[in-house]
Amino acid sequence: MTTIAQNELLTRTGPGTSMGALFRRYWIPVMMSSEVAGPDCDPVRVKLLSEELICFRDTAGTVALLDRYCPHRRVSLWFGRNEGHGLRCSYHGWKFDAEGQCVDIPSHEGDDALRKDIRIKSYPCIERGGVVWTYMGPPEHRPPPPEFEWTTVPGSHRYVDRRLGECNYLQALEGGIDSSHVSSLHGGELRKGGTLDSDPGTGSRERLSFLNEKKIHFEVTPSASGLQIGASRRAGDGTNYWRITQWIMPWYTMIPPRTTDSPLHGHAWVPIDDENCFVWNVTYHPSRPLTETELEEMHNGEGIYAELIPGSFRTAANKDNDYLMDREAQREGRYYSGIKGIAMQDASVQESMGPIVDRSLERLTTTDIAIVQTRRRLMEAARRAERGEELPALDPSTYRVRSATLFLPEGVRLADAEATLQEATRTESPYGERSFA
Amino acid sequence: MTTIAQNELLTRTGPGTSMGALFRRYWIPVMMSSEVAGPDCDPVRVKLLSEELICFRDTAGTVALLDRYCPHRRVSLWFGRNEGHGLRCSYHGWKFDAEGQCVDIPSHEGDDALRKDIRIKSYPCIERGGVVWTYMGPPEHRPPPPEFEWTTVPGSHRYVDRRLGECNYLQALEGGIDSSHVSSLHGGELRKGGTLDSDPGTGSRERLSFLNEKKIHFEVTPSASGLQIGASRRAGDGTNYWRITQWIMPWYTMIPPRTTDSPLHGHAWVPIDDENCFVWNVTYHPSRPLTETELEEMHNGEGIYAELIPGSFRTAANKDNDYLMDREAQREGRYYSGIKGIAMQDASVQESMGPIVDRSLERLTTTDIAIVQTRRRLMEAARRAERGEELPALDPSTYRVRSATLFLPEGVRLADAEATLQEATRTESPYGERSFA
Amino acid sequence: MTTIAQNELLTRTGPGTSMGALFRRYWIPVMMSSEVAGPDCDPVRVKLLSEELICFRDTAGTVALLDRYCPHRRVSLWFGRNEGHGLRCSYHGWKFDAEGQCVDIPSHEGDDALRKDIRIKSYPCIERGGVVWTYMGPPEHRPPPPEFEWTTVPGSHRYVDRRLGECNYLQALEGGIDSSHVSSLHGGELRKGGTLDSDPGTGSRERLSFLNEKKIHFEVTPSASGLQIGASRRAGDGTNYWRITQWIMPWYTMIPPRTTDSPLHGHAWVPIDDENCFVWNVTYHPSRPLTETELEEMHNGEGIYAELIPGSFRTAANKDNDYLMDREAQREGRYYSGIKGIAMQDASVQESMGPIVDRSLERLTTTDIAIVQTRRRLMEAARRAERGEELPALDPSTYRVRSATLFLPEGVRLADAEATLQEATRTESPYGERSFA
Repeated sequence: MTTIAQNELLTRTGPGTSMGALFRRYWIPVMMSSEVAGPDCDPVRVKLLSEELICFRDTAGTVALLDRYCPHRRVSLWFGRNEGHGLRCSYHGWKFDAEGQCVDIPSHEGDDALRKDIRIKSYPCIERGGVVWTYMGPPEHRPPPPEFEWTTVPGSHRYVDRRLGECNYLQALEGGIDSSHVSSLHGGELRKGGTLDSDPGTGSRERLSFLNEKKIHFEVTPSASGLQIGASRRAGDGTNYWRITQWIMPWYTMIPPRTTDSPLHGHAWVPIDDENCFVWNVTYHPSRPLTETELEEMHNGEGIYAELIPGSFRTAANKDNDYLMDREAQREGRYYSGIKGIAMQDASVQESMGPIVDRSLERLTTTDIAIVQTRRRLMEAARRAERGEELPALDPSTYRVRSATLFLPEGVRLADAEATLQEATRTESPYGERSFA
Repeated sequence: MTTIAQNELLTRTGPGTSMGALFRRYWIPVMMSSEVAGPDCDPVRVKLLSEELICFRDTAGTVALLDRYCPHRRVSLWFGRNEGHGLRCSYHGWKFDAEGQCVDIPSHEGDDALRKDIRIKSYPCIERGGVVWTYMGPPEHRPPPPEFEWTTVPGSHRYVDRRLGECNYLQALEGGIDSSHVSSLHGGELRKGGTLDSDPGTGSRERLSFLNEKKIHFEVTPSASGLQIGASRRAGDGTNYWRITQWIMPWYTMIPPRTTDSPLHGHAWVPIDDENCFVWNVTYHPSRPLTETELEEMHNGEGIYAELIPGSFRTAANKDNDYLMDREAQREGRYYSGIKGIAMQDASVQESMGPIVDRSLERLTTTDIAIVQTRRRLMEAARRAERGEELPALDPSTYRVRSATLFLPEGVRLADAEATLQEATRTESPYGERSFA
Repeated sequence: MTTIAQNELLTRTGPGTSMGALFRRYWIPVMMSSEVAGPDCDPVRVKLLSEELICFRDTAGTVALLDRYCPHRRVSLWFGRNEGHGLRCSYHGWKFDAEGQCVDIPSHEGDDALRKDIRIKSYPCIERGGVVWTYMGPPEHRPPPPEFEWTTVPGSHRYVDRRLGECNYLQALEGGIDSSHVSSLHGGELRKGGTLDSDPGTGSRERLSFLNEKKIHFEVTPSASGLQIGASRRAGDGTNYWRITQWIMPWYTMIPPRTTDSPLHGHAWVPIDDENCFVWNVTYHPSRPLTETELEEMHNGEGIYAELIPGSFRTAANKDNDYLMDREAQREGRYYSGIKGIAMQDASVQESMGPIVDRSLERLTTTDIAIVQTRRRLMEAARRAERGEELPALDPSTYRVRSATLFLPEGVRLADAEATLQEATRTESPYGERSFA
């Protein structure tokens, strides 16, 4: 059982919180590189782990992430001018470079002592896989850049976007590691079987396992980066159908692919504040470009993607319109849950729990073992961070895992199929250290 | 004077409150039966006494009222499927029957021990008078079903609806027992005299008493079910014009009819939470069907009814648009208050006090005696409930009262006219025990 | 540095606060006289210093400002009828005259004792300069009416309006006394040079001083009514260009005029509650009527004025639409800040600080000396008020100051140019004691 105190520990990530301190030890995806497209672009407001920030690309092309407020009179720098290697506050013209150093105070021209003494909060940014990442922790603990396989493949092999999630990050993350809801919540989608479904739709053996076999057996084991979550269903032909999901600290999940040649999918569930998160959606293929059809479906908000309200990251279907619940479709089973699309099906249940669910009221069972262990490992890591002990998943090599689907003979445990498992889930990051950002 | 502490006691009705405990000892109107029209209908979100619930009619036609959240992971059951004698959560497919018993956990098929151990909050429902009623109190104290006269007449004799009231239930209820505001707030309506006005419009003697005589004399006496509130005005021909309003514990009011053959009106003022209530409006005739004209006027939102925003229970005129205040009409006296319709006139004053009025700031006078006594009796009953003592108005026979209008000679007190009063206000529930639901 | 405690002291102005007590010692602009245009006009809701009030003009033409809520049952008197020398509550018809005296209780007709005993909060109102002013302090301390020059000129010489400011009054006020932001924030407007710009646009010497000289030297000296704020920039021809801004206790500012014949501008920054204020805008000429062109520009929301959302005091450009930020115009320098109009430029920075900025986080410099001194004088006056000591700016003769622009030889301090300064900033209120209201 999760106590109220543990729930607080798990869900609060602002400055001064334990979980927030842990999360600040990792590189954090901020936005698409294309959102700060060129030098001297429009500045963009950012909120991460409850901190209000401003992001811009300076004249030299460097991406900067600064405190949103000018230290002089606390005006939002969003109203500022991004020009000449810095962002200039619109009120009195104070100007800050990409590292937060004040480089100009017009009314004190020439007074370098004052100017040099003023430096605002600035977080280092890098770009990998078409995404801006930042590090908000103590400089001395800054880890090497993240090396998820999808950040290392050419841009043509990858599709990434994000949407607003209107609940605490953990509710959303827990959906990503919960293999057992797939056959119920996404049942209708399985029957439909679109190209991009993150869960089996077309492969007959996989599909049958989903639709006909409701009992699930779990094998959850710690991995170097987080957890390896194996869920098996009887396939009915003497084999078990195994889905291997990866959870990578602190908030990355990788979803099992449909077939061998299917693109792989993944998510990041990143706290904006304690009641909102960004849901990052990643699709990539390790060895081939994504097809026109695949790209078009993603653009159209199918599969794990969703249609957004133009000019925002909010989904067109959202909690204010009950995710466009269609009772007729629900009754007929076109969409088992009555809601269209895997993304919105997930959002509907996660957000219906309220902004921060009270986990002390839950009734967990054996099929929730991955959730229990994820919480335990997060809390343990937070304690390790507090004590200054070593943390998991800071070494980029630990990211070299994949999700997978396997068929193993009945009676064979996942732990007994080490070689098969290794082959399916390890990657040597085929594109090596080279970044295609 | 009502103290701040008394005001808290009177207005807080959520779980764990004294007044909430009292209210949970009575049957509570939930919604129209037609809102859960047929077997396996769409589930409906309900909030009553600050509890979030879900209502549905199961395959057998039984109306169920359950905790809104699945005990497993706290997902709203509103997103669930109502099918096969139960409501199934859309996340992992857990299913609950009308009594809240878990009847299926797909991922644990066959594990009856787990399933049987899980039962969620469920409140018994009955249907009377076209309305679903529930009982939210301790099972051992469950009283017999309510027997208001209007619940016992055929459907053709009755019209019932409800609207959202955007303030604490008590502010609204106090409007229902306050005979003295009729001639001022509803003054314009009186002059107009529509068919459905709950207050005299056409009868000349009654109307004159209202318009010409502002002084009111009160006789408020305890009744078996609550209070009998007599308000007299001099009719000017040697008689006094008496209006007898009934307050029935805990929140029912009955408004005096216009003439002998007029339909009778009544209200229930039911807490949704502490800052909102449902205003139930009832019109019925004990011995004849309502006429086409009467029904049409009610459908059109006239008299005590109001036009609703389609798909909601919010009125088209509401606090955000100042109830469509028409200063010209106010100035000309077409509507004395400038607001159209008795319902919205009442809402405008009740809601303008704020969500929960601070009664310690009031300046009550002798014409507020019914309000003072209602508060006193509510507080006393709450104390009785706390001490486990007997409560008023649990015996359905005590509901057999009617509101009435009478003319008595000047000088005759209501207490002196016992026989006349009895004849006017007592009913033997002509349709007897038979329910026409 | 301003501490958190000082910030609280400075920004909280509701009943029971120190700053609120100070402000209640001065006459306060409430609304335009034209908003309560004629006898028995529609009542208008007013919120001032966090007090909810109702304003109306009675049958005799007297403007009344009363507690918004009827003492009987706390209904908003906004729904009442303004008729026959008083405002009548719509619920039970209680009626109050312009002094808050209850003059009628219909249900207690003839009971004068009760009626006479009931009197609600009422603040005296006067009209000066087309504006209704009220005094909310202790009657024994009521000062003489305000005598700003603009209240004494004929109506043809004056234009006054107000808009909602969505932040604490002090953030807005501080913008009014901050001479140093003019060349940065309003830089684009300077280049444009409209007729009504409160800051130099056409005069070449003034304009050059603004655009070419960023360094500012301040001389801030206490005046009888508040502060005289001198800011000088090198004009480049052996002279300094001086702008003299007046701050008059508690919240009035006067902006330097463009040229000798330009109309003068001023503001009042009046707390509605602690997170909103009314920004009053005043333009007047001491000796001539405003021209058609000037009036048209003001009507169109140019210069210090802004376009309002019809039927409200909210500006069309506001924080919800980022003040219609135009990044292209910002980039091109058409509007230096990207926002159109001096009023909205000011609002964008002031409101972007949040409802109440945390001044303990500021980094003030020597160019903020006027702001530092204004805060100090406000706090000192609040303490004086608490101790019952004499307060500044209660004597109307202290209002007879003007803002000004001057050119003085380099090296000459403002303090050395007493005669020139006096001539430029003193006014004998040419229209004398005569009011043109």
